[in-house]
Amino acid sequence: MRQGLHGQGASRGNALGRARVREPHALEVAETRIAAGDAPAELQRLHAAIAQVRAEIRAMRDQLHGALAHEVGEFLDLHTLLLDDPELLQGLDELVMTRLYGADYALRLQRDRLAAVFEAMDDAYFRSRIEDIDHVIGRVHAALHAHEAELQGVAGEILVSDAIAPSEIGRLQARGVLGVVTSSGSTLSHSAILARSLHLPLVVNAPHALAQINDGDVLMIDGASGEVIVEPNADDLRRYRDRLREEKRERKQLRRLRREPSKTLDGVDIRLYANAESREDVAEAHALGAAGVGLYRTEFLFLQGRRIPDEEEQFRAYRDLVLGMTGRTVTIRTLDIGADKADETGLALRHEPNPAMGLRGVRLSMARDGLLLTQLRAIVRASGYGPVRVLVPMISGREEVLAVRALLDRAQRELRAAGHGTAERIPFGAMIEVPSAAIALPAFVRELDFISIGTNDLVQYLLAADRNNDALGDLYSPLHPAVIRLLHGVVRIARGRGMPVSVCGEIAGDARFTPLLLALGLEELSLHPSPLLEVRRAIRALDLGHLRARLPTLLRARDRAGLERWLDAAQPLHAPHRDARA
Amino acid sequence: MRQGLHGQGASRGNALGRARVREPHALEVAETRIAAGDAPAELQRLHAAIAQVRAEIRAMRDQLHGALAHEVGEFLDLHTLLLDDPELLQGLDELVMTRLYGADYALRLQRDRLAAVFEAMDDAYFRSRIEDIDHVIGRVHAALHAHEAELQGVAGEILVSDAIAPSEIGRLQARGVLGVVTSSGSTLSHSAILARSLHLPLVVNAPHALAQINDGDVLMIDGASGEVIVEPNADDLRRYRDRLREEKRERKQLRRLRREPSKTLDGVDIRLYANAESREDVAEAHALGAAGVGLYRTEFLFLQGRRIPDEEEQFRAYRDLVLGMTGRTVTIRTLDIGADKADETGLALRHEPNPAMGLRGVRLSMARDGLLLTQLRAIVRASGYGPVRVLVPMISGREEVLAVRALLDRAQRELRAAGHGTAERIPFGAMIEVPSAAIALPAFVRELDFISIGTNDLVQYLLAADRNNDALGDLYSPLHPAVIRLLHGVVRIARGRGMPVSVCGEIAGDARFTPLLLALGLEELSLHPSPLLEVRRAIRALDLGHLRARLPTLLRARDRAGLERWLDAAQPLHAPHRDARA
Repeated sequence: MRQGLHGQGASRGNALGRARVREPHALEVAETRIAAGDAPAELQRLHAAIAQVRAEIRAMRDQLHGALAHEVGEFLDLHTLLLDDPELLQGLDELVMTRLYGADYALRLQRDRLAAVFEAMDDAYFRSRIEDIDHVIGRVHAALHAHEAELQGVAGEILVSDAIAPSEIGRLQARGVLGVVTSSGSTLSHSAILARSLHLPLVVNAPHALAQINDGDVLMIDGASGEVIVEPNADDLRRYRDRLREEKRERKQLRRLRREPSKTLDGVDIRLYANAESREDVAEAHALGAAGVGLYRTEFLFLQGRRIPDEEEQFRAYRDLVLGMTGRTVTIRTLDIGADKADETGLALRHEPNPAMGLRGVRLSMARDGLLLTQLRAIVRASGYGPVRVLVPMISGREEVLAVRALLDRAQRELRAAGHGTAERIPFGAMIEVPSAAIALPAFVRELDFISIGTNDLVQYLLAADRNNDALGDLYSPLHPAVIRLLHGVVRIARGRGMPVSVCGEIAGDARFTPLLLALGLEELSLHPSPLLEVRRAIRALDLGHLRARLPTLLRARDRAGLERWLDAAQPLHAPHRDARA
Repeated sequence: MRQGLHGQGASRGNALGRARVREPHALEVAETRIAAGDAPAELQRLHAAIAQVRAEIRAMRDQLHGALAHEVGEFLDLHTLLLDDPELLQGLDELVMTRLYGADYALRLQRDRLAAVFEAMDDAYFRSRIEDIDHVIGRVHAALHAHEAELQGVAGEILVSDAIAPSEIGRLQARGVLGVVTSSGSTLSHSAILARSLHLPLVVNAPHALAQINDGDVLMIDGASGEVIVEPNADDLRRYRDRLREEKRERKQLRRLRREPSKTLDGVDIRLYANAESREDVAEAHALGAAGVGLYRTEFLFLQGRRIPDEEEQFRAYRDLVLGMTGRTVTIRTLDIGADKADETGLALRHEPNPAMGLRGVRLSMARDGLLLTQLRAIVRASGYGPVRVLVPMISGREEVLAVRALLDRAQRELRAAGHGTAERIPFGAMIEVPSAAIALPAFVRELDFISIGTNDLVQYLLAADRNNDALGDLYSPLHPAVIRLLHGVVRIARGRGMPVSVCGEIAGDARFTPLLLALGLEELSLHPSPLLEVRRAIRALDLGHLRARLPTLLRARDRAGLERWLDAAQPLHAPHRDARA
């Protein structure tokens, strides 16, 4: 029977497909009991999962060859051995058959029992072995739910769940899931931001979704309005087809914006730069009429090989980039790699307990002899082929700015002396993403030519919330008064000096946040090419004077709810439609 | 022959002992070659280290018993197996004997070779096995240098080195090393702060120390003046004895300060609270005349057992604490534990990539059903026995403050309704240690009764620099303009409302920073009991009016050097001596 539900549209797009309902389940902690009659089946399920993991490991082992197959194989054998341990297996049997625990909980209990033996030992060596146990148990757990996970979102389905983690968004989209409906959540959560950037339709905050939608129901969702129809009728389906046509028309209209300026309703030009890391990105940026490349990530050059590229190699890559942008400015960020990643190129041999707060970015570049100078030389040489800017990541204060600037000066001096044709002036900028740099900006702003605010990292450090840690729920969010206040401060200082300032985090590429960024005084954004036209459309539907008038209200918001209200009120009215009619 | 050297006094105290010179060696990265004649000895050294690790692992294995000896043993066997691998051993032989690499570098090359095999595989499973290799190689490396490390600092020796890492300070002191001289370093580095808190004499920035001091020379150092005498003569030794007498007199004088007020020269009373986590700390705090307990860490209650203590257990611990302080205020901080630690009590099953920015503090307390309410109930019940304040760690914004406050109100309401005798009012405070809380304080300050600034965490998040990561060198430092500015802002807001505000990080217990904290407007500090009298002495030698007059200069400092200059100029003139003469 047809039913209408309402949630909030969190990521635009229409989808029609069968519902796959994922019941909320508290993973490891919940003590689940099963009926005595179900125990044999439950145990069988568990055994099947163990057998599957055993087979996976065997398959990996078979793929091994070469000199070190022996050692690698031993590690695998050890894990197989753990899986075959009679005590582990008997313990599981007993927990399921006699004590009637569900497979998940039985696994957890056995994990804890094993871990306790290791933990009880004084030696740090043993304690670290718990990771192996967790790895094996985790594999079994994954195998137990693989089947479910596959059901919970195959191509052509719409996932219905209580919540969705940021880390799931990408996997769902890759698997061909058409859309997601959640009973909780916010349109401005990290998950929602990611869904929009991947164009995965998402409806959040549809409180009755789990109660009213059954597995296998046909669903029709509209990620713009938040409408969810269960078992749509002929009228609904007609509307669906209309909407698809509308979407198509819109996309066409959007494409027309390629040649349009990014001007607000009141005529202020907002410069849209592209973030890029490949030739394809650069080509797309050019085609979409980006003002230039606002953030070229050089990491891929360092990660694609197993070694550090030399000056010549780097120079050629940067020169091609500059040539590809035919005279538009290209901003090259020096290596922003963490020690965890750098391992792969032999730059470091290190396991840091908190890599996000470790030897990364400019810290690593300066800690390794010649690394930064070589890169700066390559960039300076490329500047002979078109306008180039140098951007330095993870700046925390004045000392680093001066040190890098001195190296850049040296590179320019030496190359000119050697007769290289370099640009007269290479603007030098800092990523503002470490909170201390944002707060102490007045101490070194005069040493800079431009500023790029990296909101992704800035937010995670400000809130001390790892953005990739799903356990923190919605804690990671740019919608915090401290973030707004700090952005406002940085923009004010830069604009006061007539210095270019842009934002290059995820929020720059999310049209929902465009009103907020404009209100804060930003007139330059750097974003991935794929949402560039949507952001341009949003800009063209916004009145900058009106937004700036509402800035005091924005700065007064005391919590996320207040900021969300501000942002809701600031959205251009039916922005896409208004545009369509323009 | 007698020689005088000069460095900077970084941690007071005199020491007389033989020098142990640690030549700087770039650990894993330097390509070291040896003479052909030395190769057999080098190889033997390496083999001895491998044999030692093998023996260590065997010893561990022999200690195993009980049900799971089998699995645990397998992990150990695997590592033994890696050590016995003919390819690994032959590779090492060849690298040392034929190619004449030093043992360290040979180990590194072999490590990289092994790691490359794992890294080349697509599966994350294999890649994670690199940790095992690193563990085994790391053990061998440690064994290679254990011998050295022991020589480089046994009881009665003074270590001479190019630099000293924060993580080494505690180990050296525990080993009975008398003092440390470094050729580089600053008196305000993290290492220096730790040396002062452990009363380990330290002279830094003695540029010629490595060139002019030989292993085994007799050294006499003064950690106050920075004087270093090589091969002291009879006069020097007399001075040394005089100084020891002076130190003794000073300690006596310091002890007299137990009954003195912590008043500045111009008569302003600075309240010194104690950080405490054991009964001994509480007793000492009481004996030293602390104004109360400013930070009682409840973690030890949770970590000492293998389970979460129940309300009754917690209540009894808090009540005894309150009774122990006989009417002085006790500030109890709710659980500040990370998911990494919480594993041990079964609170979580999780490996976070960045635990410092993970599910910790109030986040964990709120994520686990009943955990926080139980703790708050126990605290409220203890409030019937004397003045108690509740302090909440890792607050990031208004939402958390409101949520915890509501739970506290509920606990009070329910306990009163059940007839418990609780305090009329239990002041409620937030740790300000997450940058967003410091910046957005105006949004929720009215919900608080007091504020405690946790500078240790605040600094690491502000600078995105893990305070325990030695690879970052001196990057982690409270002497950053952003830290000063933020502290100033928080203190101003609190004082503007007449709200108590204190600092409870390491700097509160370091008399060198006392002028800075006073200049910023702090009139309450919370510190470990052991440096309490030294800080009191510093306070008694400082003129608050004078310091406040210099606040604008402090706020204008642009970098660490500027802040160090300010702090140097602000030190009370010969504070200890002035005190001694008072």
